[in-house]
Amino acid sequence: MRPSHRQPAQLRPVRITRRYTRHAEGSVLVEFGDTKVICTASVEETVPPFLKGKGQGWVTAEYGMLPRSTNSRMRRESAQGKQSGRTQEIQRLIGRSLRAVVDLAALGERQIVIDCDVIQADGGTRTASITGAFVALVDAVNGLIAAGKLGASPIRDHVAAVSVGVFRGEPVLDLDYPEDSDCDTDMNVVMTGAGRFVEIQGTAEGEAFSRDEMNALLDLAEAGIAQLISLQKQALAT
Amino acid sequence: MRPSHRQPAQLRPVRITRRYTRHAEGSVLVEFGDTKVICTASVEETVPPFLKGKGQGWVTAEYGMLPRSTNSRMRRESAQGKQSGRTQEIQRLIGRSLRAVVDLAALGERQIVIDCDVIQADGGTRTASITGAFVALVDAVNGLIAAGKLGASPIRDHVAAVSVGVFRGEPVLDLDYPEDSDCDTDMNVVMTGAGRFVEIQGTAEGEAFSRDEMNALLDLAEAGIAQLISLQKQALAT
Amino acid sequence: MRPSHRQPAQLRPVRITRRYTRHAEGSVLVEFGDTKVICTASVEETVPPFLKGKGQGWVTAEYGMLPRSTNSRMRRESAQGKQSGRTQEIQRLIGRSLRAVVDLAALGERQIVIDCDVIQADGGTRTASITGAFVALVDAVNGLIAAGKLGASPIRDHVAAVSVGVFRGEPVLDLDYPEDSDCDTDMNVVMTGAGRFVEIQGTAEGEAFSRDEMNALLDLAEAGIAQLISLQKQALAT
Amino acid sequence: MRPSHRQPAQLRPVRITRRYTRHAEGSVLVEFGDTKVICTASVEETVPPFLKGKGQGWVTAEYGMLPRSTNSRMRRESAQGKQSGRTQEIQRLIGRSLRAVVDLAALGERQIVIDCDVIQADGGTRTASITGAFVALVDAVNGLIAAGKLGASPIRDHVAAVSVGVFRGEPVLDLDYPEDSDCDTDMNVVMTGAGRFVEIQGTAEGEAFSRDEMNALLDLAEAGIAQLISLQKQALAT
Amino acid sequence: MRPSHRQPAQLRPVRITRRYTRHAEGSVLVEFGDTKVICTASVEETVPPFLKGKGQGWVTAEYGMLPRSTNSRMRRESAQGKQSGRTQEIQRLIGRSLRAVVDLAALGERQIVIDCDVIQADGGTRTASITGAFVALVDAVNGLIAAGKLGASPIRDHVAAVSVGVFRGEPVLDLDYPEDSDCDTDMNVVMTGAGRFVEIQGTAEGEAFSRDEMNALLDLAEAGIAQLISLQKQALAT
Amino acid sequence: MRPSHRQPAQLRPVRITRRYTRHAEGSVLVEFGDTKVICTASVEETVPPFLKGKGQGWVTAEYGMLPRSTNSRMRRESAQGKQSGRTQEIQRLIGRSLRAVVDLAALGERQIVIDCDVIQADGGTRTASITGAFVALVDAVNGLIAAGKLGASPIRDHVAAVSVGVFRGEPVLDLDYPEDSDCDTDMNVVMTGAGRFVEIQGTAEGEAFSRDEMNALLDLAEAGIAQLISLQKQALAT
Repeated sequence: MRPSHRQPAQLRPVRITRRYTRHAEGSVLVEFGDTKVICTASVEETVPPFLKGKGQGWVTAEYGMLPRSTNSRMRRESAQGKQSGRTQEIQRLIGRSLRAVVDLAALGERQIVIDCDVIQADGGTRTASITGAFVALVDAVNGLIAAGKLGASPIRDHVAAVSVGVFRGEPVLDLDYPEDSDCDTDMNVVMTGAGRFVEIQGTAEGEAFSRDEMNALLDLAEAGIAQLISLQKQALAT
Repeated sequence: MRPSHRQPAQLRPVRITRRYTRHAEGSVLVEFGDTKVICTASVEETVPPFLKGKGQGWVTAEYGMLPRSTNSRMRRESAQGKQSGRTQEIQRLIGRSLRAVVDLAALGERQIVIDCDVIQADGGTRTASITGAFVALVDAVNGLIAAGKLGASPIRDHVAAVSVGVFRGEPVLDLDYPEDSDCDTDMNVVMTGAGRFVEIQGTAEGEAFSRDEMNALLDLAEAGIAQLISLQKQALAT
Repeated sequence: MRPSHRQPAQLRPVRITRRYTRHAEGSVLVEFGDTKVICTASVEETVPPFLKGKGQGWVTAEYGMLPRSTNSRMRRESAQGKQSGRTQEIQRLIGRSLRAVVDLAALGERQIVIDCDVIQADGGTRTASITGAFVALVDAVNGLIAAGKLGASPIRDHVAAVSVGVFRGEPVLDLDYPEDSDCDTDMNVVMTGAGRFVEIQGTAEGEAFSRDEMNALLDLAEAGIAQLISLQKQALAT
Repeated sequence: MRPSHRQPAQLRPVRITRRYTRHAEGSVLVEFGDTKVICTASVEETVPPFLKGKGQGWVTAEYGMLPRSTNSRMRRESAQGKQSGRTQEIQRLIGRSLRAVVDLAALGERQIVIDCDVIQADGGTRTASITGAFVALVDAVNGLIAAGKLGASPIRDHVAAVSVGVFRGEPVLDLDYPEDSDCDTDMNVVMTGAGRFVEIQGTAEGEAFSRDEMNALLDLAEAGIAQLISLQKQALAT
Repeated sequence: MRPSHRQPAQLRPVRITRRYTRHAEGSVLVEFGDTKVICTASVEETVPPFLKGKGQGWVTAEYGMLPRSTNSRMRRESAQGKQSGRTQEIQRLIGRSLRAVVDLAALGERQIVIDCDVIQADGGTRTASITGAFVALVDAVNGLIAAGKLGASPIRDHVAAVSVGVFRGEPVLDLDYPEDSDCDTDMNVVMTGAGRFVEIQGTAEGEAFSRDEMNALLDLAEAGIAQLISLQKQALAT
Repeated sequence: MRPSHRQPAQLRPVRITRRYTRHAEGSVLVEFGDTKVICTASVEETVPPFLKGKGQGWVTAEYGMLPRSTNSRMRRESAQGKQSGRTQEIQRLIGRSLRAVVDLAALGERQIVIDCDVIQADGGTRTASITGAFVALVDAVNGLIAAGKLGASPIRDHVAAVSVGVFRGEPVLDLDYPEDSDCDTDMNVVMTGAGRFVEIQGTAEGEAFSRDEMNALLDLAEAGIAQLISLQKQALAT
């Protein structure tokens, strides 16, 4: 029995709200149950130094949590003077996941910076971030097309992400915090609309896991991500 | 004529939403027009080292802006490895303003940390922060009373803040960003429910200002803060 | 009765010594009683990046205290790896105050950097810094004129600063450390030679203050700053 | 055809040299072909603050590369003032992988710190690090047993790691640098002696990968890790 | 011919002014010609962590330069966020030099922190710092004796320092900046009142130097330091 | 009697292994007994900003120790976020020593960066580093000549270094760690093949030293360095 009374293969209620704040070229509030993340996409007409003059663009991401998005207050990273290893891992993952579906040459010499800021956390912040960030990215790209700066979209496919894990011996989809903090195996899966894998990161928090368990987890993830991509499409259609 | 078509003495629409996120002991979304700040109050049963064993509590504040809360993206302070001078000034101001109405000895040896995070900026983020933070602080203190940890409230009075300034020659209340970035004088005023001053910070951005102008600005601020405190009381009554 | 036996409206003995060190384009030792600050003005023939190519100059300030300028030794900021929030607030205040009386376009594309270093502290270091820094700035500008690099001075007026406060119920001028650390209200006022306000920063350290108290403090400040500007003029005349 | 002329399922020559340097409780030079990493294990009779008094131990890891371990010189992280996100990801991975096979309660209140320093890099530094670090850890634990500080070993199983990837359309084992920098999918797999998974981190560097490709990669990894664990056993037997 | 027209074995005019600022337990302005350094000694009734409970004291030093103590403005180290390698070298040298003449066990479990801050630089700031710091240290120790906290002085001998170098082929004493920036060999020598060496740091800036040259430099240094120690004694006698 | 049973004037066994790692233009493992340092030379076709366009090259050095190169584990400098004062002193010394024998104008506008990384420490790491770094530098320069980028070598002479000290009253050559940590005087000497001095850094760790002791130490150093330079020549001849 899951603490939330969900079925093993059941996502939390997912909401994707576009145009959430007014300044960014793309601005999305994504909610996976009580996990809430603001994802903005900012278009900059420059590229990082290592890409200067190479005729291609870049998509990158930064991630943060409000200090009291969590159950007990975390120290503010700007006050500590550095980002934690966990923060850096997550923002690198978000950036790689989005770049996997973007034709960077077709984007032209410009950069899109995605900011994912968690305002309330209940597990799965990185997968919610990727899922919401994709929608913000589409909005920013559509703005470039509408402004005549791009002729066609450089985005080749959808991308979304979900966590899966073995909780009390059973594979389950979309872990919330009570499950995440008490599971044996935790896996984050990022997939495209075509059903191919972009990232798989599985960790045995307690017992190491078998090949059979991994296969069961991937089955759950595939089905969950298909639903998430369907929700992205609905959000983008409105 | 103000860009927003407001009267000189007219506040923007102000909304104070309590219980905005679920983990913090106090959590408020405060909106001054398009300026939106999440203010949370976190109770910690320790005090900073300089107060250890002195039999009194502490109230402090931290402030941040989401990178794309503004019109063009700002660099993330955690990625830069330090907080800007402006950020430090603002968080010191918020902390002093709140401490001015708290009996720190009556609070006991505990600390309340206020986090003010701007999710959308349109001028006046520091005054909105103080106004919202006070409500979050009251909620956190009431939780301590409800839990039997405090017998009576150590909060002695309300505190709220507003900006005033000389815009195109005319003193106006509650500057939004178009006014703030184009005014001659900008003043932030913090007052108590009893109508006394906690902080006055006036700066001549362009021309230096006269004593008469300052008096006109203070008149506007007094009236505006009285309205804000009335809105705080309404919010706390629901 | 003030600890120093001064009258409420009486400044400490103020001395302004020009050409105090030999390398800087302007070098002033300013003394407000036992508060002693070295203010140097350095001319640099470049501007900060945000002003490149805009046809105007810049005036900025940095502030520091020798570790044992104070009663108990402070940690050295360079050893700690960062400047405190207080230091940043003060150096931003000094810079804004000086820029308020300089025609930056007339200065041309160059920067004048003011360094204010406190060698002995007894309260009022920021107001002494502003008062002395102005004289160093004038010397540096006069050097540019003498060298034929500027045709006329871009300095439009004098600027000076003083602190005022409510000490044991009475408004007093130019707080020394024993007063500053034990007063209810502390206000720093920056004014021009024309008697207009550049900055007002008032803080209720203990009880919030009334409008009447504020008016009494401003009266003291106006008179005190007029004397300081007169002393600046004497110093510059020698 | 692989640049190294290896078969798809062929490891590079692997060497594990124990007692490589003389000060550490465990010191191993691990070589996967031209990739060479010094792994030391240091026993400290304290635990990190978050474990004080909890009656358990800790195993953690740090990772670094000599600036010229790579083809072009990298900036030294100590001179830059921070560790890169990649470095932090890797050292967190090494630590988690080792803790997965250690009974931390049985270790007692002490910490074993693993340092993995790459002196020459040719791809696969993180998997070589894990494989070598395990041997250094065993040596350190055996030293504790020999000294009478531990009655039995808290190490429950072997752990080793290898990279696999899709290079020019073909799944291959143990990528060297020319393969790693030109492959479509790169996966790092960490497994126990019992053939269970501790970590799987797969990334689509170019095209997203299918479930079939992933299965082929895991088959290669399982076989490769079995060989590596056999080599660990040989090394520990001498 | 030296730029200053001094004889090869001639010191610059040296002045040692005690009680220069009022807060520190020892406060000295030391001048070697145009080089001016404020040296303060602060007594702290604690020791650094590595000495806790070892029954001995510590003497340490910090060094800084005002940004415009030099001919062109240097960046402020606190604003840069770190001390330069040169600064750290110098402060370590000052600390070692002073500790060489102090019986740390006799000092008791307390620390004396020496701050050497250069307000005007013309070469030889580190040797002037050592020479002045010794006098400040004596004053601080005498204060401890006067307060009954120490029965006898733990200072065993005088210590002073001077630079020597080969300028245009000739060994000279006490290099000023024009000599220092254009000499072949630069050597800093620290000696005791008994004429023994505490530190010798010689560097060939241009041509490597011979044993004969080194001997000539040491002869100059011995004579110069004897004079400096005589001046310390005069200063302490007044 | 020395702990190692060496004669006072006897070096430890010294080995210089060229081509130790494969990527760097020069790569040397230098061993002074149990002290082992990897020295690499990296050629970069740029110069530091302060030399841009001046028609000369640069040689600089960085130094590090693996955390467990020492008897008890040191904190990793990259994890601490800064290099210690000791590290900076040593890398500055290595750089100066090498530049003393290089004609920087003849090197052309390029930089050679020397990295000295201690993998096992037993005293004398800085002198071993200089001695090994010189050989790596020669290899890198010879590579430039072989590639036709330099017509002749800009290296004018050999340079090598050794430590000497007064151990239990007797002057001895090439201190190992047990001697280094228990000696009265410790001196590092850097000399050229022509027998001239590049650097002398002598420190009285315990008792200050006499001129006679210094002369005895320099005699030992001269003889020791002559042997080291002979070993450099042998290594370069193979």
